[in-house]
Amino acid sequence: MARTDTDTTPAPPATERGRRTRRKLLDAATAEFGERGFHEASIASITQRAGVALGSFYTYFGSKEAIFRDLVRDLSDGVRMAAAQRLAERDMDALDTERAALAAFLAFAREHKEIYRIIDEAEFVAPESYRAHYEEAAQRILGRLRIGAQGGQLRDDLEEAHAWAIMGMNVFLGLRYAVWAQEGDAPDEAERAAQAANSILVEGIGSKN
Amino acid sequence: MARTDTDTTPAPPATERGRRTRRKLLDAATAEFGERGFHEASIASITQRAGVALGSFYTYFGSKEAIFRDLVRDLSDGVRMAAAQRLAERDMDALDTERAALAAFLAFAREHKEIYRIIDEAEFVAPESYRAHYEEAAQRILGRLRIGAQGGQLRDDLEEAHAWAIMGMNVFLGLRYAVWAQEGDAPDEAERAAQAANSILVEGIGSKN
Repeated sequence: MARTDTDTTPAPPATERGRRTRRKLLDAATAEFGERGFHEASIASITQRAGVALGSFYTYFGSKEAIFRDLVRDLSDGVRMAAAQRLAERDMDALDTERAALAAFLAFAREHKEIYRIIDEAEFVAPESYRAHYEEAAQRILGRLRIGAQGGQLRDDLEEAHAWAIMGMNVFLGLRYAVWAQEGDAPDEAERAAQAANSILVEGIGSKN
Repeated sequence: MARTDTDTTPAPPATERGRRTRRKLLDAATAEFGERGFHEASIASITQRAGVALGSFYTYFGSKEAIFRDLVRDLSDGVRMAAAQRLAERDMDALDTERAALAAFLAFAREHKEIYRIIDEAEFVAPESYRAHYEEAAQRILGRLRIGAQGGQLRDDLEEAHAWAIMGMNVFLGLRYAVWAQEGDAPDEAERAAQAANSILVEGIGSKN
């Protein structure tokens, strides 16, 4: 993708009203890209969904590519904040933290099933955003593992590979139990899946001391 | 995607020569779809890469969509057989089996970096093939886990969710250490990553008896 449009990305809105309009456009873009995919999606349809004049779009985003990139960043932030909120609710040890982070992610994925399609399409439409999404998530997990190791709750030899392994577990459990939830699944299937995955981690990364 | 072209898919080649030509077209399609993506790829370019006359293409595949679907199936088979070969080499216990399956997958991914792009693009171009690829892989892993549990080497409560979790680990380790291998990585970084992931499983799914 040509990078030139990043050079003309407008400054972030300075007013509350501007921030609300930008938010409406991002939410509309989530629906538009999620339903139609990047290539079929149009700026006109995004502004129509948002109830915003077509011309206003360019006050906030330089192009269709630009809003797509900003949306990937926005969804990354959403995943991060969904977990952070859950983790802030109470003091948890490191294994509870991973369980809660997975539960938060599964809940977020159930509420925002488009997230998989949009992030996955970023591999083709905005490869740098795609890679940043996963590299940053792996770094967040690694940070949690290190805190758990320092606290003596987790093994002290955990490294980047463990973080990628845990991220992969979480992403694929979300794919199976949120996006591809099946008719035969029990109502608490996602919850059971999260516990099953956590049972791997309790013994697999928990400290033996 | 319209399903009509599946109705006109030619019968598999009956001769050895036909099978070789079909194989050449699939290999050429791997390079073409891997480099250019589905939408930019062309049948003319695939036949040119394969050194096959344009008209011959339709002896083997009904359309660009049809060869893409067959290619996803072919890559699925490649992943499956790469693991099966490694596993057949010697008698292994269930945990060695998972370690060997991951090592085989990482080696396959390093040799066929296009596989990620092609499988991932299938989510958009051939969603049924995409889903089948992962559902079948999860079933294979689950089958191995059940054999390990029957043999007393693995926990006896392993279920579908554990298989998806292990598949996710493997896919994301392949993404990081095969497709996105970094300059700062040690020469044996993928090997180390595989061992790190396996260290989660040894304690996480191994039998406690």
